[in-house]
Amino acid sequence: MRYVIIGSSGHHHQVTDAMRAGSCPPPVGVAPGDAGEDVSGLALQTGAKQYDSWTEMLSELSPDLAVVNSWYGHMAEKTVECLKRGIHVFSEKPLATELKDLERLQAAYEVGSAALGCMLGLNCCGWFRTAQAAIQDGLIGEVRLLHGQKSYRMGTRGPQYQKREDYGGTIPWVGMHAIDWILRLGGPCEQVSAFHSSACNGNNGSMEATASVLMRLKGGVIASADLDYLRPTGSARHDDDRLRVTGTRGMIEVIDGRVYLENELPRRELTLLPEENPFMRFLRCIGTPEGDALAREAIEDTRICLLARESADKNITIFCS
Amino acid sequence: MRYVIIGSSGHHHQVTDAMRAGSCPPPVGVAPGDAGEDVSGLALQTGAKQYDSWTEMLSELSPDLAVVNSWYGHMAEKTVECLKRGIHVFSEKPLATELKDLERLQAAYEVGSAALGCMLGLNCCGWFRTAQAAIQDGLIGEVRLLHGQKSYRMGTRGPQYQKREDYGGTIPWVGMHAIDWILRLGGPCEQVSAFHSSACNGNNGSMEATASVLMRLKGGVIASADLDYLRPTGSARHDDDRLRVTGTRGMIEVIDGRVYLENELPRRELTLLPEENPFMRFLRCIGTPEGDALAREAIEDTRICLLARESADKNITIFCS
Repeated sequence: MRYVIIGSSGHHHQVTDAMRAGSCPPPVGVAPGDAGEDVSGLALQTGAKQYDSWTEMLSELSPDLAVVNSWYGHMAEKTVECLKRGIHVFSEKPLATELKDLERLQAAYEVGSAALGCMLGLNCCGWFRTAQAAIQDGLIGEVRLLHGQKSYRMGTRGPQYQKREDYGGTIPWVGMHAIDWILRLGGPCEQVSAFHSSACNGNNGSMEATASVLMRLKGGVIASADLDYLRPTGSARHDDDRLRVTGTRGMIEVIDGRVYLENELPRRELTLLPEENPFMRFLRCIGTPEGDALAREAIEDTRICLLARESADKNITIFCS
Repeated sequence: MRYVIIGSSGHHHQVTDAMRAGSCPPPVGVAPGDAGEDVSGLALQTGAKQYDSWTEMLSELSPDLAVVNSWYGHMAEKTVECLKRGIHVFSEKPLATELKDLERLQAAYEVGSAALGCMLGLNCCGWFRTAQAAIQDGLIGEVRLLHGQKSYRMGTRGPQYQKREDYGGTIPWVGMHAIDWILRLGGPCEQVSAFHSSACNGNNGSMEATASVLMRLKGGVIASADLDYLRPTGSARHDDDRLRVTGTRGMIEVIDGRVYLENELPRRELTLLPEENPFMRFLRCIGTPEGDALAREAIEDTRICLLARESADKNITIFCS
């Protein structure tokens, strides 16, 4: 499997982590996806050949697979180009930041033979797999209400966060994780309402510092997700991911990467299942029904994120199906 | 202060608690508000004279004040009647379960001289007052995002929960507490979207077992509240009230009646302020600007609850102002 990396603005460490663990070979080439990206460190770290142009790199190396993580608003064009060339793509989330680009991406995926993966590392981490398995085992009964939280420190944000056209928005960028948890555990989304605000965003252009997404899922299941960049400086670490899933028999809650269950027995902590590296999962699934399902889920997650963003932009509610 | 109690379906224990503590005298009369209510225990406990008809009781005793907590869907008519007679009212929440009744109630309050209080015991409890004071002291900076949770055990629900006309709905009945927290700490509500579902409600008629309310407040502040009757049987106690308020400087979180603050300093627990009995607060505030403000807040809380319920009933978003 000869692969290249386009861009360095996302979670390509999922790939280099796997490489360092000896699970996959190093990339054969790296190139910036946007003018503002410097991939020299990545080239040095991996020993890959460095290119100035990602299209030139594709043409010269003809790789089997491309890892795409340039500025978030400009990833879809690269993914579409790779898929059209028959190159498998492991993309940062969201897969696209405009619905028309997502439609083009989906069409390219459907018509071609290349596989499509997404850096949704938070649905193959230990705590998510543990919660998902407990729910699949019926330990909380029928799922009826879900709440997710993504809270990040603002920190110092690069230029790719300043403009909607480059960044895509906080609901797609931060919220896609929570929306993915919700759709995986709660079912398909039928209606979405969301609000977001760029106020108090640390002078990061139009980047939304806060958002909340409300969803009606199939069967009247209800879900919501809170997103913010306001995690205080004195907090224990960068992120504060949380998830609460309430069912007819019990409730599962995730705080600080630990999973708690209460049902007819009192609250207790569950032993974590092992995590799977998201890049290794993608490689394992290429050409399989599981891989196709993961691709379609990432497409749907992205679509719901973009509809939620539209809901927030226009102060409307949106029917998704 | 001679007062009577109409009905026994709500939190009249707020009154009898104050009585038992020696803070206020016993009621002079008690009467059912609805045919299904038995107030004999209340009469026995307080030594008050028992009536079959609440209107007869009002006419015969001419009390200064009436505590109204009949079936939730039928309280507004009693409150309006009392206000018209110049009798102060301490009502269970919500003040009304239909907007047209709330308008009549508000008109009766505005035009008359009687005071109006509401059994919002969860905004004068220790933890809420502690969180509110910390926010007013600027310890989390400017409030930007709020999330409340009310989770109850289903238990065995009486006949007043079966029909919308009697019950009013879970968003007004359970959600009003969370909506009150949000409006007090986050500001006025400008737009609301909500979902609710009667599925898996333990055969309680049309009672909604789950709901979630999303609000856009003034200045782009965002808030949400999750409501459910699915708290598992093995849980530590009946309710699981939670509140999270995120500001530009820090975050306050309430879990299990304990208040935690993190800002530029790490997470720590705050010492609780004393609680105030809601009935004693009402008595203390009668005829004062504080009392008038509390009445107007309860009216607005009720209005937002009813708009949220309408949003959920119709799958629409509603502009509140």
